[in-house]
Amino acid sequence: MKVLVSEVGPRDGLQSIQQQMATADKIAWIRALAAAGVREIEVGSFVHPKWLPQLADTPEVVTAALQIPGLHVVALAPNLHGARGAMESGAHAINVPIAASQAHNMANVRMSCEESIEALREICLARDALPGPHRPTIEVGIASAFGCTREGKVSEDWVMRMAVTLAEAGADAVGLSDSVGYANPAQIRRMFTRLISEIGAERVGGAHLHNTRGQGLTNALAALDVGITTLDASQGGIGGCPYAPGATGNIVTEDLVFMLEAMGVDTGIRMDGLLAARKVLAEALPGEALYGHVPDAGLPKGFSYADGSPIAA
Amino acid sequence: MKVLVSEVGPRDGLQSIQQQMATADKIAWIRALAAAGVREIEVGSFVHPKWLPQLADTPEVVTAALQIPGLHVVALAPNLHGARGAMESGAHAINVPIAASQAHNMANVRMSCEESIEALREICLARDALPGPHRPTIEVGIASAFGCTREGKVSEDWVMRMAVTLAEAGADAVGLSDSVGYANPAQIRRMFTRLISEIGAERVGGAHLHNTRGQGLTNALAALDVGITTLDASQGGIGGCPYAPGATGNIVTEDLVFMLEAMGVDTGIRMDGLLAARKVLAEALPGEALYGHVPDAGLPKGFSYADGSPIAA
Repeated sequence: MKVLVSEVGPRDGLQSIQQQMATADKIAWIRALAAAGVREIEVGSFVHPKWLPQLADTPEVVTAALQIPGLHVVALAPNLHGARGAMESGAHAINVPIAASQAHNMANVRMSCEESIEALREICLARDALPGPHRPTIEVGIASAFGCTREGKVSEDWVMRMAVTLAEAGADAVGLSDSVGYANPAQIRRMFTRLISEIGAERVGGAHLHNTRGQGLTNALAALDVGITTLDASQGGIGGCPYAPGATGNIVTEDLVFMLEAMGVDTGIRMDGLLAARKVLAEALPGEALYGHVPDAGLPKGFSYADGSPIAA
Repeated sequence: MKVLVSEVGPRDGLQSIQQQMATADKIAWIRALAAAGVREIEVGSFVHPKWLPQLADTPEVVTAALQIPGLHVVALAPNLHGARGAMESGAHAINVPIAASQAHNMANVRMSCEESIEALREICLARDALPGPHRPTIEVGIASAFGCTREGKVSEDWVMRMAVTLAEAGADAVGLSDSVGYANPAQIRRMFTRLISEIGAERVGGAHLHNTRGQGLTNALAALDVGITTLDASQGGIGGCPYAPGATGNIVTEDLVFMLEAMGVDTGIRMDGLLAARKVLAEALPGEALYGHVPDAGLPKGFSYADGSPIAA
């Protein structure tokens, strides 16, 4: 079995950190991640620099990332304007975040859910107008799918209706996001199972999970159990959601890769490479807290990767 | 569904901390845990005070804990001498740790695996010689069942042979321990499933899991998935194994209880009570690091317990 660990640190991590990482450092970090075997990286966000100055260099970063052989380059865009920028940049995929909670979506992208769905439709039409080889895939992550810091419980029926509408509007993939750490494993299994039956496995995107309440890896395991094979994570667990109070901490890439490889699930990623990339990150963001247990504890004695290869000497 | 969260902080936590908690503080902490709804607590260890001076007051602590209505009081004993002490104390259950790794067992209790198995047999005979109402249950946790910091991989066949031998020798329950944080969810599911088939579900004890590599909760979820309904945890994640380098951190009780209750699994434990007990712990161990995400992040808005009751006002 194979899983795609999609690294979101350069976007979700850096957007919620006060320090601004230099463009050259971002590119060095992305290259180091790719060298570790990471096959997909969300490298930036096409939003107005007024809102996220940390990601103002996204076009340059995309251009550099596209030079890395075999890397699938993702960029976030919240609206048609951003998506046009992403299309011009040549990114392979565009991640469009739409929250299931009206309050969260308004705070995040200053649109109602319905306006965001309409924007997604326009983005898909813009994509369809491009010549075939230049069409990026359009992926939606439904945020606050498992609950909202403002609204509390979010209707599962509504989340599913949104997913169906988004798929019908032309999204290539629809995933579920828990950027506030509200989800539990039973809910993850129930909702992803339902999502698969509502829009078909081939349209189901990944799970974007945060570790706010310590449930990041359990929720990733739960998603894996019901057939989800794309899992977002952030090196060092950096990141959160700047508009969701207390919502710090993506799943730590290092710990997720360890879990998967130890279970016999092939990620193609190697821990020594990840630790080298972590060093690049740590040097580029002096004083920033990096999380993760495996970087501290090391791999178990006798550990081998899913493909049978042992720890590098 | 119900799960027994067995609190091991007063034993496993305190034994690996330099500071010595005052007896009165231990008793206050145990009372606060019980008031939060914790139904089983491992309150101490009958080992020579030369080895674990932090637990030298175990007989007094057991006596006090036995006064708490409804609380199941567990004490650890590594050998017959300790078990006799535990039996005299009136503890309801005795936890006998035996490692599957010869090197670990020797370091931990200064006996070979075979000597520990023989000691367990003697402990069971001593129990059988007591009048019925005074017989404690004898529970074995097979340590380093998922790997060993000294020996690396541990044979699963050997672990199963040990479990069968221990059950035949009279152990009421045999569980599996990962005090070094080597286990992964696939291994947990495979080995507990096999343990149930080897010795029968009624003889299978709990899962004792550590968070050394961030896998504590995922492994707990994996154990739950295959029918394990007793899960050890430690308030604030304190503890480790003093003889296993780098093996710090039990599963955090607060985060485990949140996971279970959020999933709809009834623990009988309430978070406000746990936080009150955590305050007692923090005041009794000034400066000691306490872990856990839920204590920092709080319960999600709209959260309700497995039995339907909402967050206390």
